[in-house]
This record gives sequence, C-alpha cells and structure tokens, in this order.
Amino acid sequence: MRLNQEQVDRYHEDGFLTVESALDRGEVERLRAAFTRDCEVPGPQRIAEENGADVRAVYASHQRQPEFAALVRDPRLLAPVQRLLTEQVYIYQFKINAKPAFGGEKWSWHQDYVAWRVADNLPAPRQVNVGIFLDDVDEFNGPVIYLPGSHRSGLVRDSRDAAVRSDQHLDPDDIALTKEQLAGLVAERGMVSPKGPAGTLVFFSPEIVHGSAPNMSPFPRRLLITTYNDVANLPSWTGEPRPEYVVCRDTTPLRARETPFLDGLETVAA
Amino acid sequence: MRLNQEQVDRYHEDGFLTVESALDRGEVERLRAAFTRDCEVPGPQRIAEENGADVRAVYASHQRQPEFAALVRDPRLLAPVQRLLTEQVYIYQFKINAKPAFGGEKWSWHQDYVAWRVADNLPAPRQVNVGIFLDDVDEFNGPVIYLPGSHRSGLVRDSRDAAVRSDQHLDPDDIALTKEQLAGLVAERGMVSPKGPAGTLVFFSPEIVHGSAPNMSPFPRRLLITTYNDVANLPSWTGEPRPEYVVCRDTTPLRARETPFLDGLETVAA
Repeated sequence: MRLNQEQVDRYHEDGFLTVESALDRGEVERLRAAFTRDCEVPGPQRIAEENGADVRAVYASHQRQPEFAALVRDPRLLAPVQRLLTEQVYIYQFKINAKPAFGGEKWSWHQDYVAWRVADNLPAPRQVNVGIFLDDVDEFNGPVIYLPGSHRSGLVRDSRDAAVRSDQHLDPDDIALTKEQLAGLVAERGMVSPKGPAGTLVFFSPEIVHGSAPNMSPFPRRLLITTYNDVANLPSWTGEPRPEYVVCRDTTPLRARETPFLDGLETVAA
Repeated sequence: MRLNQEQVDRYHEDGFLTVESALDRGEVERLRAAFTRDCEVPGPQRIAEENGADVRAVYASHQRQPEFAALVRDPRLLAPVQRLLTEQVYIYQFKINAKPAFGGEKWSWHQDYVAWRVADNLPAPRQVNVGIFLDDVDEFNGPVIYLPGSHRSGLVRDSRDAAVRSDQHLDPDDIALTKEQLAGLVAERGMVSPKGPAGTLVFFSPEIVHGSAPNMSPFPRRLLITTYNDVANLPSWTGEPRPEYVVCRDTTPLRARETPFLDGLETVAA
C-alpha cells in the first residue's frame, strides 16, 4: 500500500492518519485467533488488569506467533512507515492492548516518546506507530483520542519530571499531562477519535498527545500497536535495560513483503 | 412546546426523546449563572466528587433559585411531560450533575426507578425525566448513554437485590446491572448517546437503562435533570424518609407557564 501525498501531508499536519479497513475480515479473524493463542503463553509479557483476571496487554507477540511476525513486514504497514519515516526501520515495540468489556480502565493523556526517552534513552522521536483495530471501534468502546497537531509542540511534559519506572511496563499515569496543558491543546485544535471497522489502521506520531476512555460497551476492544524505529536511533541504557519483550533487541532493518501477511503462511491451529 | 405524534411514539418506542436547542444561548447563560450561585450554598444538598473539592451534584436548586423555580413550569418542559405522562404532575426530584473537566467519574449502568422503588416505595414508574444540557455535549465529555427500548423490559435488576442506602444520595453503583444483562440488551438494540448544543432537552423514561463515561475533556459538562411524577403515585416510607432535597415534598400539581421561564423574571446578581 502506497500513501498518496495528501495522506503524507495529513500525517505530518495532524500527527495521525487513518486508513479504513486496510485489512479484510478474514485477516482480522486470523489475527484474533493468534492473539487468543498468545494470551495463553505465560510470562511477564502478559500484563493483567487491576482486577487480576483479565489481560490488559501482551507484548512482543511477533516473536511468538507467525501471523504477527509476517504482519510487521506486510506492505500495508511497512511501506507507509518507510515513506513517513525512513527506509531503514525495525520493530522497537509490539503490543496488543485489550480493553475487556466494561472492564478496561482509561489511559491517561500522554506522549509515548516521553516514556521512551526516559526509559530507553531513545535519542529522537524517529518512530511511527501503527495501530490496528482487532475489533470494530465506536464511541462507546474506549477509542483512542488524539489531540490533532499536538506532536508539533514537541514534548509538553518535561521528561525529567516523569517518575517513570524503568524496569517494567510503563504506566501512562506516570507521564500524564496536567489539566492546564491539555486545556490549551484542546482549545486550539480539539479532540479526534478515529473509529471504524476491525482491520482499520491508524498511523500515529510518537509525540502526539493521546488518551482513551474506558470501554463502556459489553464487548472487548482489542488494539494492536506496533512501533517502528529508525535503525540509526537506537536505545541505550546506563543501568539495567528494559526487558526484551518491551524493547525489542533485533534491530535488523525490515524488508517489506511483496504480498499480504497471510500469503504462504500455514494455518496454525488455535 | 407541543410534541407531535411522531415524537410521542419515539419516546414510547425508544424510552427517550431529544429536542435539540429547545432553550437558546441567553437562557442557558442564565441557568449557568444560577447554578454557579447555587453551588455556593452550603448544605447536604451539595454532593462532592471523590476528590472532595469539585461538586458532583446539587439537589433541589428550584427551591432556592428563581430561574429554576420558573424553569420547571416552562411550557417547553412541562407541556411535553403532561402529554407523555399525565396532566397532574409535580417535581419529585431536581438535580444538576456536574462532570468537572477530566474529573467526573463514570456512572454505572442503571435504571432510575429501581432506586426510587426501593428507597421511596414509589408505586409505579409514573415519571418522566427531563435532561437539560447546560454545556455542549459531545462524545468526549461524558455524555449519557441510553440502551434504546430497554425501558420496555421492565426492571432488569430485581430491586430486592439492590443494597440501596436509604438515607443519602443514591449511588448508581448500588443498583448497577450485571455484565450479562447489559450484553443482552446492547446486542438487541445497541447504544445511543444524544449529543448537541447547550440548551438541548432529553426526555427519558425512569425505566430506561443508562450510564455515562467519564469526562475526558478539559471542559466541564453540566446536566440538569428534573423528574416529574404523577401526583397519584406518591412515595411513602416505613422508616426514616429520604431528605426533602432528594425527594421533594410539595406535590401540588404544576400549572404550565404561558411563556418561557425568563419572562417576568428579575435579573438576579450572580
């Protein structure tokens, strides 16, 4: 998939870009099955909700499940990222956030790059996130809300203030913006929450301010987010590095597949 | 204001009816000023948010502020209520819910009448609620969400199960529906949240299942709700009655004004 110039301009202007139904229903079904399978794999990469029972997030599924390993090189994801950022990218982080029915807590307003600079010394915001809807997203099931253009103000919250836990899953509460900072940004350009059918992609900047409301619906809302980083922009640590499931260590530049991710992929029993 | 037959039918079919911008901007300004004034009146009728600082709700403002006293007899509110319910109605409850910026907690899914039957022995669901937007309502500032048609199933949660505190402000958490009950209702008819400019009215049934998400925006979202009850359907108590600010004792049938509520009303300094 190639982005046209208008799409590229919109990404840089707004800080995000939605491509509706880029993946079809059959592809989404396979990704859901792979996620269900990956939720059964015990380990620290599986983060629980506060209630202890439901899964809030799973990291690095592309290292365990062939569907996700192929997906990150799918031309519908990788080609746009290369156009928006640079040819030479690798997967810095891969996660799936599940918002269980009536259960998912809200995520505070934050900028991803604040966390990554503090925790991993990422030199620059040279990343592109790709969000993939694994469920239909509507106004009721906790859609991500973006403040358009907020990525162009740089970092709103100075990362030196952020009490970021360096050895674990990052909690957006630790890097949340203040009420006054948010009010200023919203007054300028408002709030937008992309919605659409499962299979919709949202490309978004590591500096855009975003958050999301709880899932008020009785249905789950699963969102896959894969973060591509410039291979010339590697993390480094003075102390203990963050775990490999949070910050992927394989920095080999990715080559885009010629065909969609399911082509040539064996069906794996769920 | 007279409802047409289509509006009456829709109210009975869906359990709610929206009338956009029924009050104009100037009228809304006067109501906001009256609310601000009433928030300064100390007493148990003023309910605080969990943080202790912000106001979550104020009851019975129509007993203290002339704007609200006139509003409940405004023909745009009272005439539709008389059409939907009966000519002989009085104010059972009057409250203003304020959802402070970034602060308002979500309200659990519930049916109003469950609480009223348990707490006040209200014999029948012979009420009509009128919600008045005191701020523009959009998808981000915690709009009320209705499950259309859910009022026609009667009481989803048996009120004998409800651990309702009888002497205080009712917490919808105490009468919340279960996940399974909600999933069934939503699967049938979906979820709807009326939005619109300040001054919009929403008439809704005491039996409709509703809830609302937190206010994710940096602006407040104030909602006035006045509940009219049939004068032939009075509350009664075996023990201590609920306070007068929660359950109004003046059951004299209301006569609709001929003109909008501000006509003939002195300007009161804020």
